[in-house]
Parts: sequence; structure tokens; C-alpha cells
Amino acid sequence: MDNMITVAVDAMGGDNAPVEIIKGVVDAININANIKIKLVGQKDVINSELSKYTYNDKNIEVVNATEVIATEEPPVMAIKKKKDSSIVVAMNLVKNGEADAFVSCGSTGAVLVGGQVIVGRIKGVERPPLAPLLPTMKGVTLLVDCGANVDARPSHLVQFAKMGSIYMENIVGIKSPKVAIVNNGAEEEKGNMLVKETFPLLKNCPDINFVGSIEARDIPNGDVDVIVCEAFVGNVILKLYEGMAASLIKAIKDGMMSSLRGKIGALLVKPSLKKTLKELDGSKYGGAPLIGLNGLVVKAHGSSKAREVTNSIIQCVTFKEQEINEKIRKAMSVEEVADV
Amino acid sequence: MDNMITVAVDAMGGDNAPVEIIKGVVDAININANIKIKLVGQKDVINSELSKYTYNDKNIEVVNATEVIATEEPPVMAIKKKKDSSIVVAMNLVKNGEADAFVSCGSTGAVLVGGQVIVGRIKGVERPPLAPLLPTMKGVTLLVDCGANVDARPSHLVQFAKMGSIYMENIVGIKSPKVAIVNNGAEEEKGNMLVKETFPLLKNCPDINFVGSIEARDIPNGDVDVIVCEAFVGNVILKLYEGMAASLIKAIKDGMMSSLRGKIGALLVKPSLKKTLKELDGSKYGGAPLIGLNGLVVKAHGSSKAREVTNSIIQCVTFKEQEINEKIRKAMSVEEVADV
Repeated sequence: MDNMITVAVDAMGGDNAPVEIIKGVVDAININANIKIKLVGQKDVINSELSKYTYNDKNIEVVNATEVIATEEPPVMAIKKKKDSSIVVAMNLVKNGEADAFVSCGSTGAVLVGGQVIVGRIKGVERPPLAPLLPTMKGVTLLVDCGANVDARPSHLVQFAKMGSIYMENIVGIKSPKVAIVNNGAEEEKGNMLVKETFPLLKNCPDINFVGSIEARDIPNGDVDVIVCEAFVGNVILKLYEGMAASLIKAIKDGMMSSLRGKIGALLVKPSLKKTLKELDGSKYGGAPLIGLNGLVVKAHGSSKAREVTNSIIQCVTFKEQEINEKIRKAMSVEEVADV
Repeated sequence: MDNMITVAVDAMGGDNAPVEIIKGVVDAININANIKIKLVGQKDVINSELSKYTYNDKNIEVVNATEVIATEEPPVMAIKKKKDSSIVVAMNLVKNGEADAFVSCGSTGAVLVGGQVIVGRIKGVERPPLAPLLPTMKGVTLLVDCGANVDARPSHLVQFAKMGSIYMENIVGIKSPKVAIVNNGAEEEKGNMLVKETFPLLKNCPDINFVGSIEARDIPNGDVDVIVCEAFVGNVILKLYEGMAASLIKAIKDGMMSSLRGKIGALLVKPSLKKTLKELDGSKYGGAPLIGLNGLVVKAHGSSKAREVTNSIIQCVTFKEQEINEKIRKAMSVEEVADV
């Protein structure tokens, strides 16, 4: 039982809780019997849903939490007041070493606040970023930070670059990942104040493979592996990415269905279209990790289905196996020594 | 000849200069004989290209400018040093009242700097924004600012909202245009410092129809008419919009062409696909105006073809006919009085 990994899962968070969450959990333990799940939430609701499945009950433990944090609640207040919410209870499991990781499809704000306040930062990490994998034409690119730290400082972005590189190298398996900073032009004199101050720091950072600026237009090409930016900008990138894909695909489908000829053609292109869209579907990578905490916290999309929940749990296994946090801890302590 | 409008056109700027520029110019005067074009650039190059067309030579005048500003040149320096460049010469035509407007597909930086330094701002306008029309599922949305003023202040964004509303109401014909601010969440407590400070100012601004925050995900839906944001964020939105569209369409086409079945289907869906893409093609609206200057400056895409050049010129006509600058001047002077 040495190589067991314990993942706390928020049974109450997200648009499809608890049905899809619990389906995803059962799928995960069926894929990997070394995963132990602590399903956190309202016991009766969870047990009633769990009763629909057959599974090895050694792999699932239900941890009762009577309260639920809603998406629209102000996160700081919610974390403070709702001590018996699924998010707070699960975060405490990670804090106390009773779980290695936590997966939630619930309130992003509450997960971010709880991650910092309850789970806590790795020593030396100034701001833990939320880092989703964006699907691109050539694979995936890690976007750091997509929403944890608005109005970040240059030193934060440098840490994002380092931690993002460790993640891409060890989780996705890309040697010496290429790092770029989001900019409003390719030339070195371009940028807002934050980018202008950060650029030389990244350029002179020996631990990363910095390749310069990237314009938003080139992000979908997938030529770089790690993209760093301030969280407000990252949030715009992530959400526009999702919105554009959904809108364009809808427009193309509607266009095809507006004529008989198009309808027949649509039937024929359906398999290839489906394959293309599947390649561009981020859910196969699971949710976004909040990197730099004493334990792993993964925030999956509020609209996640079982598949994304399963993949988020599987991602936790790789994260632990590859000892990502030990590597981050080491990188940050080297930095501290270098600072002296 | 009272209703003639004179448009200076940069014959040397952009990837397709001078061929597509001159084709676009000839098309424009053939559509509207009340347009007088001052084609600015190297006389010999222009005349040799013009000789390919038949047109009424009262509608085109060639203005010699020996220098060209390249895209990669630092803009402030270029505007200062290259006094005989097409951009500087054309901007001076606008400044001196010898042209009503200026259209360029050349260096964005040089056009922005020249607009402010040579053409000059309308009294009361703090920062003139660059405002392209984004194609959406329901029509178009004006994005202010997409690149002129990084690190803008709250008062700038309020002016963007006012000027953007005047533009949408009078050029696109939308009564009481809905204004939203780009934010990283829909809730009022969301935002970076700039957004948090700007939000109440917009909410209390009587001249605009402010509807609150918009998340980047919802921009393609086209539910609002004017979107305000700081230029770095706007640049990311504009460029990711272009990049996502191009990448997705390429992926879908490649996907179809990878099987015989898909290829036959592709032939059948081609007309509807073409129609959909045409609806989403921003070039029919021409370039982006730099709003708030003493004269109109339109920056068209560097990769513009004749069609975008023509439409940019036609846009100048509506701009003058609708007396946009007089309306902005009035709105800004009301503001000044209110400030006292």
C-alpha cells in the first residue's frame, strides 16, 4: 500500500454535482486501484449516488461536510464562515496530511483562497498560480496564471515561469520547455510596465528556456510550452479561447444545417469534425492545478463531466509520482540561497 | 463639390503595398465619386501602379513622400526622424486641413504616435484609443482600446466608453449602445485594480448605457455593443480572436481532408462554410479608427487586401457625414463643464 495516493474530491461543487463527480471518481479508481478517494460532502447525498455503482469500497471513503459554498459567494468570507463546507473540510484533509491532493469543480474563488489560506504555500513561493493546459494545434501549452493573482509583480511572473517549466517537464514530459511572456507585440520594446520589467528578469533566469514574447494571435499554434502572464490577462485568454471555440463551431454547424446540400455534407464530415474537436478538447487533461502549495489542489471547470473529474484525479497521481512539489521546493530554495 | 471628402492614403504601408492599396483606392472612388484621394508615397512607384487602372484623375492626387517607415522601427524615433515618410507627410495633410482623414496599413506604432503628435487630440480627450469592430454572432462589437494606451487610467476608460458609444450610435446605427467592461468574472467585486476603480465611474456616467462586466468568454456572442478595456488586454483580445479563428478553421479543414469521406463532405459544405466565414470576416468593416483626434486616422491591418482598404476609405465618409468629431468635441466639453 506504499504507492497509494489519497485524493480528496469535492462531491458538491460544480454544475453537475454530485452525479458526474461520483461517476468520475468511480471511473478513476477502476482505472487505477492505487487511488484512494475521500469523497467530501453531504453524506446522504453522496451515499445515495454511490449506491448506483459497484466498486471496491476500500478505495472510497465518504467524509461528511454539511455545508456547500455557492459559486456566487464572496470567497474570502465563505472560506472563513463555512468551516463545515466540502471545500474547507477537504482542504483541511490536505493540510493535515490525510490527503495528498484535492480536486474541486466548485467556486474558483473559494478554491484559490482556501488553497492559500488553508493548504498554504511552499516556502519561497510568493503567489501560487492557477495553470490550465490549453489545447493547441501541436499539443498543449501551460498558461500561468489564469486567474489566481491579478496585478502580479515581475518576481511573481518569474516564479510562474520556473514552476510552469517544472510542471511541463515532469507531467507532460517536454524536455527544456520553451517559455514565453504574453505581449502586445514581438519587439523587445513592446509591453506594459509589468512586461517591460519582467522581460529582462526572464531573459537572465538560468533555470528556464525563455524564448521571448508571444502575441495572443500565436498562442493557438502551440509553438511554446509555457506562457506566463498576469492573471487578469490569463483569464481573458482562457475564457476567450473557450468562447471563440464554442461560437465558431456553433456558427459552422448552423451554417451547414441551413441548406440541404450542407446537411448531406455535414453527415459526411461529421466523423472528421468530431475527431478534430476532440483533439482540441481540453477536458482530457483534467482541471487546472494551483501550483506551489503544500499539497496539490486541482480546480476543474464548473461544467465538468465525469471524464474531466477522472482525468483531474489521474493528474494528481502523476503529480505525486513525479514529486513536483519536492522539485518546486528545491527550485525555490536555490533561489533563496542565490538571493543572499 | 461641397460634400467632397478628402482621404489621404498611405501607399507604402502594409504587406501588400502598393498593389492592394492602389486597387482599394480605385475601387473606393468608383463606388463613391465624392471621394478625393491623396495617395501618399514614392511618386514613381505609385504612378507605375496607377497606370494599370482607368479612373477619373480628378479623384486621385499623388503626393510624393520619399521615405517609408518599416513595421519594426521604434515608432517615436521613426516619426521624429522620417519627416518625408508617407505616414508623416499624410498626417501633416490632415493636420493642415488638406485632408479630412488618413488611412494606413503601415506600422501601428507609427500611426498611433503620429496621430497623437502630428494630428493632435480633440480638446478634453486624454488618450485617443484604437477601436476595431469585432465580428460577433450577432453583428459587430466595438473594442476600445485595442492597443493605443497600455497602462491606462480609469478616467481614460470612461472616455473610451463615451467616444465608443458615439461611434457605434452614429457609424453602425445602434441606438443607445450597450457598454460593458472586460472583467475576470461577472460579480461586481471581481477585477484588477483598474477595473475596480473604473466600474463605479462607468456605472454613474449618465451619457452611456453601461450594462456591467463582460467575461472574455461572452465577447463572441455579441450581446453588447461597446467593450472597454486597457490596451494591453484589448490587444490580447483582438489578436487571440484572429488567431483562434484562423487556427480552428485550419484544423477543421485539415480534419476533413484527411479521409475520402471527409473530402466529399467538404465539397458539399464548402458554400455554407464560406458564407459563415464571410459573416465572421472583420475586413468588411475596414480598419480600426483612432478615435478622439482632430481628424480621422484609420489603421487597417498590415495584411489588408484591396477590400479592406476600400472599406476603410468608405468608413471615413460616414465618419465625416455623421460629424463624429463634432459630437465627441461636444461630449468632452460637457464633461469639462461638469468637472468645474
